Amino acid sequence: MSKGLFRTENEFVRWLQTLAARAQGQESAQRPEKGVKLGIGDDAALVGVRNRHELILTTDMSVEGVHFTRRLHPPIAVGHRALARSLSDVAAMGGVPRYVLVSLAISKEVTREWVSGFYRGMMALGRRFGVRLVGGDTALVAGRTFIDVVVAGEVSRGKALRRSGARAGDQIFVSGPLGLSALGLRLLQSKAARARTLAPLAREAVQAHLYPEPQCALGRFLSQRRMASALMDLSDGLSTDLFRLCAASGVGARLWAAKIPRPELLDPEDSLQLALHGGEDYQLLFTVPRRKASRLPSKFQRRPLYHIGEIEASKAIKLVTPEGNVRTLEPAGWDYFR
Amino acid sequence: MSKGLFRTENEFVRWLQTLAARAQGQESAQRPEKGVKLGIGDDAALVGVRNRHELILTTDMSVEGVHFTRRLHPPIAVGHRALARSLSDVAAMGGVPRYVLVSLAISKEVTREWVSGFYRGMMALGRRFGVRLVGGDTALVAGRTFIDVVVAGEVSRGKALRRSGARAGDQIFVSGPLGLSALGLRLLQSKAARARTLAPLAREAVQAHLYPEPQCALGRFLSQRRMASALMDLSDGLSTDLFRLCAASGVGARLWAAKIPRPELLDPEDSLQLALHGGEDYQLLFTVPRRKASRLPSKFQRRPLYHIGEIEASKAIKLVTPEGNVRTLEPAGWDYFR
Repeated sequence: MSKGLFRTENEFVRWLQTLAARAQGQESAQRPEKGVKLGIGDDAALVGVRNRHELILTTDMSVEGVHFTRRLHPPIAVGHRALARSLSDVAAMGGVPRYVLVSLAISKEVTREWVSGFYRGMMALGRRFGVRLVGGDTALVAGRTFIDVVVAGEVSRGKALRRSGARAGDQIFVSGPLGLSALGLRLLQSKAARARTLAPLAREAVQAHLYPEPQCALGRFLSQRRMASALMDLSDGLSTDLFRLCAASGVGARLWAAKIPRPELLDPEDSLQLALHGGEDYQLLFTVPRRKASRLPSKFQRRPLYHIGEIEASKAIKLVTPEGNVRTLEPAGWDYFR
Repeated sequence: MSKGLFRTENEFVRWLQTLAARAQGQESAQRPEKGVKLGIGDDAALVGVRNRHELILTTDMSVEGVHFTRRLHPPIAVGHRALARSLSDVAAMGGVPRYVLVSLAISKEVTREWVSGFYRGMMALGRRFGVRLVGGDTALVAGRTFIDVVVAGEVSRGKALRRSGARAGDQIFVSGPLGLSALGLRLLQSKAARARTLAPLAREAVQAHLYPEPQCALGRFLSQRRMASALMDLSDGLSTDLFRLCAASGVGARLWAAKIPRPELLDPEDSLQLALHGGEDYQLLFTVPRRKASRLPSKFQRRPLYHIGEIEASKAIKLVTPEGNVRTLEPAGWDYFR
């Protein structure tokens, strides 16, 4: 028995069923509701998918020491971030997230309070997005905690937005400021975040890092109105993700550095580097054909959409610096293999 | 750059797309086929679900040092076993597996050959079951390799079989011999498996451990014909899994030790213990109402089905020993938390 965690797997499953039922505001997590025919506790989950809809499936890992640390990230934030990664993938297809499964290899070093905080953080975010926890897997392991979050979502048949639809002449947009999450992580690492009074920008950056907000409503708007030719989420940094979008579409791009929304820092070059290469912003990156651009609202849900560049036929990605120079932009965001 | 693995995530994704395309016998893993609208390489996978079907979702972890070791388990077997666990969960609902996503945190200690063997083992099994690899997530980590396999399957609306439907008087069946996998693991650990000439039973046991066969056809037969009142797969050992089935159904059971199919060993008690508590057999455990039992064939696909006991109203699980004594059976199979 590992001190204070759970005595048996059955005890863990019952504990989780109760927690899920409370957090999700229903009497029993196994009571069929909202498409859930069978939730936590059987061999598998059983859910409904609406007619004339396609199923979106995505899975994202969060590994202790890679995506989070127990020192810098409170368990509620670990749960929030782990689910936010997958919700953002569904947003990036223009879909609606519906169900979540969580595989959790719990380090023997963590407490029951940590596990509880993790699930509460995840379910609080899930509840806001109408997503139900329906299953998963659990193990107890020596060493680091390992999380894998699976989200299943739906999108009207034929309406999903891919990375591969961008064409020369399309306008490039992002849904919000870039580099905030990377700045927040830097502040957390430097202990500056623990100062009693934080500047508003620092507070915003730490919040963006710990509690990123998936852009599901915007993704759905873009897909249902058929506004975007290509869509993806910014998880690994603009330079790396735009490179992927361009590669999938067989095109290049020209970005205007001056137009990229980013934190105002004393060192403008530092700010630009964070915006170009800092990951985990979970804003949406999308392209809009020129003839549709006039129909794109300047704001969505009171937040501005930023026109940051254009798709070009030549396959390079060019950056027009604030000084007006043009240089080639190489993918330099997050990559495990580097 | 980690020696010999992959230089970038993009390189890994391209490598995997090519491998998947070859292993699954099509020109491109991204070419729409068999319900797959969008496979590996975008933000998420996009697939179809047939009308009048429900969606089965399951996820199973395989952690190095817990579920496999690099010393005893060849990478092909690790891939096979990781997928078999999830396919068996779909079998246990009476469904048909369709799509698989794999999250793989690759230890920096493994080689590209290991990763390649892992995926080939998984896809060879997937191909036999008509399952397509449509996505996943990858990270490179220090320490142990961590695998999470997600399978999405389908079952005709209302036909899924749960753990909770067993009623007093129902007959209890298993689909094949129990304890073989645990015996196989013991042989692998004792190095006996490396002897040049293995007894047929030892060969069978090692095969059962390294390459378990999910019982999807039987699960589907039981659900489509509405033969079983409850169904689950035996992953953690008969004593633990039957305990779960009985708890979910609010019943007890009486097992006849003499009827439980198991390896014939010199020590009969050892053999019984393996069959009762050894996990990872991935046979099906199911209950059949007495009035339907006469319609259950004695064999399915030329393999016998074993009638090993009866469901009882009193909540205990009793074991009738080969000597005719009755004792209470406690769950003593696999449990991470113990």
